[in-house]
Amino acid sequence: MEKSEATTIEIGETSRESKGKTPLLAEVEQTARTAGSYRRGVAIFDLILRVSAATSALAATITMGTTEQTLPFFTQFFQFQASYDDLPAFTFFVIALSIVTGYLVLSVPFSVVCIAQPLAAVPRLLLIVCDTLTVTLATAAASSSAAIVYLAHNGNADANWLAICQQFGDFCQRVSGAVVASFVAVALLIFMVALSALALRKR
Amino acid sequence: MEKSEATTIEIGETSRESKGKTPLLAEVEQTARTAGSYRRGVAIFDLILRVSAATSALAATITMGTTEQTLPFFTQFFQFQASYDDLPAFTFFVIALSIVTGYLVLSVPFSVVCIAQPLAAVPRLLLIVCDTLTVTLATAAASSSAAIVYLAHNGNADANWLAICQQFGDFCQRVSGAVVASFVAVALLIFMVALSALALRKR
Repeated sequence: MEKSEATTIEIGETSRESKGKTPLLAEVEQTARTAGSYRRGVAIFDLILRVSAATSALAATITMGTTEQTLPFFTQFFQFQASYDDLPAFTFFVIALSIVTGYLVLSVPFSVVCIAQPLAAVPRLLLIVCDTLTVTLATAAASSSAAIVYLAHNGNADANWLAICQQFGDFCQRVSGAVVASFVAVALLIFMVALSALALRKR
Repeated sequence: MEKSEATTIEIGETSRESKGKTPLLAEVEQTARTAGSYRRGVAIFDLILRVSAATSALAATITMGTTEQTLPFFTQFFQFQASYDDLPAFTFFVIALSIVTGYLVLSVPFSVVCIAQPLAAVPRLLLIVCDTLTVTLATAAASSSAAIVYLAHNGNADANWLAICQQFGDFCQRVSGAVVASFVAVALLIFMVALSALALRKR
């Protein structure tokens, strides 16, 4: 907050001073001020998107991590039970989406710095590179789980893999919900990267 | 080539002219020139990475698309045969990697424009946004196929899905190779996005 005030005062001073300066310098300052307010708008939108993406990644993690279904019948030897850690792809999903959620929460302060100091390039550059890595991680988790969910729903006659969703219907529905939530997070992340690139542009 | 020469001549002229100008204007020009040569270096590296990524995406597409294995024994009713279109994830892989290869080849002219005119922001911005979308598409294809390849290699006892790689060993090896090639393309693409972000930075 204090940093934000300092920036405002500084802008006010340069505005007053610019009258006595060469036209070129005044023009450069004018451009910087316009770029600043434009980038601040982008940074605020980035923060909103970041919080939304963190929320949907958290929802996906929790939904997948708590999914468990026990069938009401059992044989002499074992009870039929399905949970996310039966399938390696779903375990990867939970781990990857936890990392994504953690990163998004930890990156909020950097996003706030971008709002306070809209012309600073280093935090924005850091965010765009880390966001790209996060997009890839989230996409990998979402799509590998989607492949397995598809298999669980439809099976595959050629490989002789049977659909398990007839038995574990509730399990499949919750897992599908988690995958959808993770794809929403991916879409928000892609939008964030595009927005950061726009904000980095030299105007 | 002609465009590149024109730029060089222009820089030469401004260098001669700058002696008669105000110190501020000369400084601005100096900064622009330094930024220009830095960005040209980045753009050349970007072109090399783009061609490498296109090559490995093409290799992945061809490897996956031509994979087919017929077992040497057959029953009265059918012959055992495996090809990529038996599994929907592999079909998606071939389609997605074809699109990625096509995009990478078509984006080479834009990358050349970035070398010829290193200070132009619009082609670079276009590249960074499209590259991000391409990273996501390539990652989705690579990781969904990786999930299925893992299942083909190891099976899953909980879902009662048997490993098919004991029978279709050759098929599995070629498919795994295609998945590895696609992950190489993904890594190169991530590096390209990070590099483009560095080049966009206001210096």
